[in-house]
This record gives sequence, C-alpha cells and structure tokens, in this order.
Amino acid sequence: MMTDLKAMGERAAAVKLTLQELTTEEKNRALMTAAGFLVDRQEEILRANETDMDTAEQNGMSPGMLDRLKLDGPRIEAMAEGLRQIAALPDCVGECMEEWERPNGLKIRKVRVPLGVIGIIYEARPNVTADAFGLCFKTGNAVILKGGSDALHSNAAIVKVLREALQQSGIPEDVVQLIEDTNRAVTSAFMKLNEWIDVLIPRGSAGLIRHVMENSTIPVIETGTGNCHVYVDRDADLDMAVQIVYNAKTQRIGVCNACESLVVHSAVKEAFLPALKEALAEKQVELRGDERVRQTLKDCTPATPEDYGKEYLDYILSIRTVDSLDEAIAHINRYNTKHSDCIVTENREAAEKFLNLVDASCVYWNASTRFTDGFEFGFGAEIGISTQKLHARGPMGLRELTSYKYKIFGNGQVRG
Amino acid sequence: MMTDLKAMGERAAAVKLTLQELTTEEKNRALMTAAGFLVDRQEEILRANETDMDTAEQNGMSPGMLDRLKLDGPRIEAMAEGLRQIAALPDCVGECMEEWERPNGLKIRKVRVPLGVIGIIYEARPNVTADAFGLCFKTGNAVILKGGSDALHSNAAIVKVLREALQQSGIPEDVVQLIEDTNRAVTSAFMKLNEWIDVLIPRGSAGLIRHVMENSTIPVIETGTGNCHVYVDRDADLDMAVQIVYNAKTQRIGVCNACESLVVHSAVKEAFLPALKEALAEKQVELRGDERVRQTLKDCTPATPEDYGKEYLDYILSIRTVDSLDEAIAHINRYNTKHSDCIVTENREAAEKFLNLVDASCVYWNASTRFTDGFEFGFGAEIGISTQKLHARGPMGLRELTSYKYKIFGNGQVRG
Repeated sequence: MMTDLKAMGERAAAVKLTLQELTTEEKNRALMTAAGFLVDRQEEILRANETDMDTAEQNGMSPGMLDRLKLDGPRIEAMAEGLRQIAALPDCVGECMEEWERPNGLKIRKVRVPLGVIGIIYEARPNVTADAFGLCFKTGNAVILKGGSDALHSNAAIVKVLREALQQSGIPEDVVQLIEDTNRAVTSAFMKLNEWIDVLIPRGSAGLIRHVMENSTIPVIETGTGNCHVYVDRDADLDMAVQIVYNAKTQRIGVCNACESLVVHSAVKEAFLPALKEALAEKQVELRGDERVRQTLKDCTPATPEDYGKEYLDYILSIRTVDSLDEAIAHINRYNTKHSDCIVTENREAAEKFLNLVDASCVYWNASTRFTDGFEFGFGAEIGISTQKLHARGPMGLRELTSYKYKIFGNGQVRG
Repeated sequence: MMTDLKAMGERAAAVKLTLQELTTEEKNRALMTAAGFLVDRQEEILRANETDMDTAEQNGMSPGMLDRLKLDGPRIEAMAEGLRQIAALPDCVGECMEEWERPNGLKIRKVRVPLGVIGIIYEARPNVTADAFGLCFKTGNAVILKGGSDALHSNAAIVKVLREALQQSGIPEDVVQLIEDTNRAVTSAFMKLNEWIDVLIPRGSAGLIRHVMENSTIPVIETGTGNCHVYVDRDADLDMAVQIVYNAKTQRIGVCNACESLVVHSAVKEAFLPALKEALAEKQVELRGDERVRQTLKDCTPATPEDYGKEYLDYILSIRTVDSLDEAIAHINRYNTKHSDCIVTENREAAEKFLNLVDASCVYWNASTRFTDGFEFGFGAEIGISTQKLHARGPMGLRELTSYKYKIFGNGQVRG
C-alpha cells in the first residue's frame, strides 16, 4: 500500500498554528528533552542501525558509505549535542525586520515567520534526521523527512524517539514525520505535494540534487555541489598561497567547500607551482595541468576541459594558467558552481575586482574556501549550503529557514 | 527554424559583468534615454500595435483583452514615465546588508548583488515589456522576455527601440532580449534553461502561472492569484467594515488584491450584512452566502464550497458566517491563496491573533486589502506580488530582484 502523502501533508498543516504559538522557551525545552531521549534510548536506535548495516554490507556497500551510515554511542551523543546547541541559539521567528509608516497613516511591519512545512530529501546519513528536525522545529516549521532507503530502520527509530519526546513535551508529534515507504513513486509524488509543502531541500550527492531540481514542482533550495577555485594572482604572497591551497584541497576532501581547481597567473607559476607540488606531495595529491603548467611541472597529468568542470571530492587538483585577472575571472565564472572561490593577492584593487565579479555565494580574499560553513560563519547551525540565488545563498542557518509577512496596521484606510 | 535559446542565454550571460560594473548614474542615464526613445519612436510602436490589434479583432478577442493589448500615445507616455520613475529610485545593488568579524579575524560582508539573468513570461499587456526591462536593468540583471503571441509585434517594436536606446548609451543591447518565436516548444525549452537563467517570473493569469510552476526547472517566483478575505469581527466598527469591504471589493475588480470573500462573525451579521448589501447594491455586486447569511439576506444566492476557493475578479462576493475568531482564521487559512487578508475589529488581542496566525503575505488590521501593491507600500516600483514564501513575499520591488553574496576578507586564514 502506498503511503498516504496527502494525509501526511494534512497532519503537517494541522500543527502549523500550534508551532507558531509555541514560545521560545517551550521550543528550547522540547529540544533538550529530545536530546535526552536520543541518549537514553540509544540502544533501540543502535539496534535499528545494525539492521541497516547488515543489509548494506550484504548489498556490498562501499566502506565510505558504510561509515556514513554507521551509528555508535559517540555519534548519537553528537546528534543530541546538536539539538542542545540549536536550543541555545537565539530564536529569530517573530523578529521585526523593518517597519515604516506611509503618508496615509498605514503602519507596515515586516516580520520574520516560519516557512511552514519543509520537505527534506536526503541520503544515507542518519544524523541528518535529528539535525533537520532540530533546525526546522526551532524555526517553527513542520518537517516531512524522506531519507535514503539504506538508512530506513535507523531513521525510523530516531523519528520514533523524537516523536515520543515531543509528546512528553506536550507538543503534537506530527511536527516531524518520516516517509517510510521506499517506493520511488512515493518520492516522485512527494516532490509534487505543492498544496502541503512550502519548500523542499535536497541534501546529498549532486545526482540527488539534480533529480530533485528537475522533478519537483515545489520550490527547491539547491544545495551542495562545489567546484571551488583558488586563484593565485601575480601579486600573491606565495607562501600564503601554498598554505591556502594546501588547506582548501586536503584538510577534508569529500566536502563541497574543498578546492578542486587552481588558477595561477603565468608571472608566478615558475615560483609557485614547484613549492605547491612539494606541499601537496605529502598528501599524494594528483595534479592535472594545462600545457604551460606541464612546462613547469614535467610529470603533471594533462588536464582535459572536463577536469575544469569537475568536483573531484578526491586528492586531485586541476590547474589552469592565465595571463591576467580578467582571464582568471572568466575561467572561474565559466567552470565554478557558484559556491566558493578565492583570490590570493596582496593587491587590493585586484582583490576587489575579483570579489565583485566572480559569481559565487562566497568570494574570499586570502583565506581558505573551507570556511564556507554555517558554523564557521557564526550561524551556530547549518541546514546546507545554497548554490542558487533565490531566497538563500551560501551557508544556511536558522534565518534561512524562515520567510516573512507584512503586518499592516490601519484605522479604516481605503484606496482612492 | 526554432529560436536558438542557448545562444540567447549565452548573450545574456556575456553582458552580466558589464551590467555589474555600470555605475548608478550610467544606469539612470540609460533609463532616461530609453524613456525618450519610447516617446520619440512611438509611431513605429503604434503601427506594430495596430497589426496586433487587427489580428486580435479578427480572432474575436474579448473587449477586455483588446483593451489590455491596445497602445496609444498616453499609454506609451506612461511606459516612458515608468522608466523615468525607476531611474529616480535609489540603487540597492552593492549595498552592505550586514558585516561582522569572526574570532579568527575573518571579516564577512553580506553584499546585495543582481540575480543575474531573469526570465519573464507574460501575456497580452505590452507595457510589461518596458516595465520589466526597467526594473531588471536598474538592479543589474539581464532579462529575457517571452510575451504573449497576441502582442508579438508590439513587444518586438518596444524591444527594438529599447535596444537602440541602450546602444546609444554605450550599453550592450543584449541586456534585454525578446523571444519572438511563438512555438510552444520554445516556451517549454525556455522554462528549462537552468544553465543560463537564474530566476523565472510568470506574470499573468492563474493558468499561466500554474503552467510555469509545473513545467519550469528554473527557480520560479509565483505571483498573482489572490483570493483575499475580509473578516468582520464581533468587535468591529461596522461603518468602517462596510467601507473597507466596499473598497476592497469594488474599487477595481480585476486585480489580485481585491476582496473575493467576506467572513462575518455571527454576533454582528444581523447588524452588518443589510448595511453592506445596501452599499454593494450601488455596484450591483452579487452576494453568495451560507445558510445563516441567507437567514439575514433572504434573496442572497447560496454559496457552494467552490465559491469560497474562487478568485472571481468580478462583482461577486462570497460570504461565510463564523462563531469565533478561531473559526475565521481556520476558514481563511483553508481557502486563501496566501496573498492578503484583513480583520476589521476594535479588539487589539483579536487583531494580533489574526495577524499572527493567518498565513498570507499581507495581513491587515482595519485597512483595505487593495493596499498590497509595490507603489502603495512605498517601493516606488513593482514587478509583481509574490504568493510564495521562498525569497520574496508580497509586493516585489527592486530589492526583491536581487540576491546577495558573502565577501570574506582574510590574511591567510586556513581551517584547522
């Protein structure tokens, strides 16, 4: 029998008003209770996770994927700690964003409100389940989750515990619901549930995100893919450039804010590339360069045009030589994913031009692209990193899970 | 031969950097020049419009539609005046929205930037052509227009004049392009041009907007449909309520912020409805009410459930009786289109509850819903009224045609 999505949508809609009327204290207490429940009931969650792990191993899941799927005591404690941190953050719902008065006496107040009902489609990480619930709940949103089928038992156990915690807090448990049906038709129908869901956020691989973008009729926030560049300018501090590229490339490779491509000014390539190569050799990073790069680094792999568009998520770095800042900007705007790009230079004018003209959510002057992150930005939380321009761009924290409404105060005004 | 949309997208992308580097003065001068061109070259535009009008008349277009399509001297002057007004508005692009420093010394600045390339799909009003160009250009966006086929010659003539005005201003004319192909397959392909278009805004009928929402893979801003309510509370000033409903229903009927449905508290229906009926009789408004309304207004048409969900855009008003504020809020949240809803009451507590819990872009206390409008809000311009929650809600002016980016200033920071 197919999941009754319409009924789930109706249940989510039915709790919207209650959610909006909860005080900050009530929400925070419920988040702390939920954190406690996760820790106290971890055996039940770990048992469910073992079922998922067994099936995944039998199905030959890769070690990397198995690691993402696996839960243990410390990971459950981390999930609980995530909820406690969200409880500690300020509540942005209800804040007055702007207020003005019109000549006719109408007072207009722009007020932050929840988005309403958020749908999250994600893959094998069960920690997303608690995390997404916490962020949506704190911002007064109901959430309907559709996790990967590999993590079904884990997700179901986590949601069961969260719902029981809500019930104990006197809050309707339907503020978080999980679609447990793994039928693909259900996911397709979920993406067309416009009547009930205000926003859909996919979290996961580039393929998942593209699939949701192409098939959802609900407004989507595109997250994720990062083909991030570091441009080493002719006026760069080359020691700093080595450190920044080394950090952005190797500090963590499987993440969207890692550097995938280096653009280097021809005037410094001879001085810079050998030093960089030596640093990256420590992590056995494979370099793929254009012809001029290979004149400097004899044993470098040739780069194809496909290399420049690729998010490797691996110990590989493409390198392109340019003769000017303009050429660097044009190259980056052609190949980037509008995520994060950096210029290393001591020249303020060059930096300003780069920051103005490179089309990305985050543009860096002399710092690693790895800082594109809700926590590093000081948001205290992160639901994802938006690579689109509508609504939210870059790291999305609590505020990015809200909308606004205008409250208009009159005393009988009519339009003439 | 099918229009080469990819080539159009590439041309729009090619002018993005130029657009971003234009100063406010350069943009304003170009808008004034374009206004002058529209007036000076009006004969050529009017001739093209005559061609469209002739064809439309032969095809039996309704008088209302013909009126929307028709251009004359005053209407062209109004288009020009619209561009002059946009020139006079402040330029929001480049403004610093927020700025902060992290403990590691990184300075983060959130800066307003253009969206990039905007696609507009609209119907028979040729004035949208100049208007959309002006708003997009002022905010540094390139625009690709797809107007209704009935207005093809008019739109082509307007765009030709605008492009020549841009050329005279030394600005690449591809900042505005018109798709002249009326083949439906072209419109379908246009809605999937994600690589080149950042945002798609449909302007027109509910049917057009739904079609775009359902078929576009590009992020869409949903505009338009308004099933707006006025709720007359038990504590209402009934004279004020008559004036507000009269204004919201009859001041202009074919617009999205007109009142389509009245909700009345049972405690005041006997005192209120006859007075309202008398006022609305002046405009021959048909009333459609539930059973309790018909106990008070004997000759009132019975309302069906479909009536409550309907945007009449006509001299018709549906009426529903409720016994409490909660029932009013539940009814409105069920049937509204999240556009504009009003409470008439002298009771502050009731008003605050209504403003908090009715889910609409604009919620009014004692004022006509007709004020939901970019000009009435003081934005100085309007590209449409958003009924979605993502990105922009309610009247959209210049700021709503922008996105933001984060500029991050470091001195060699890497992530630990």
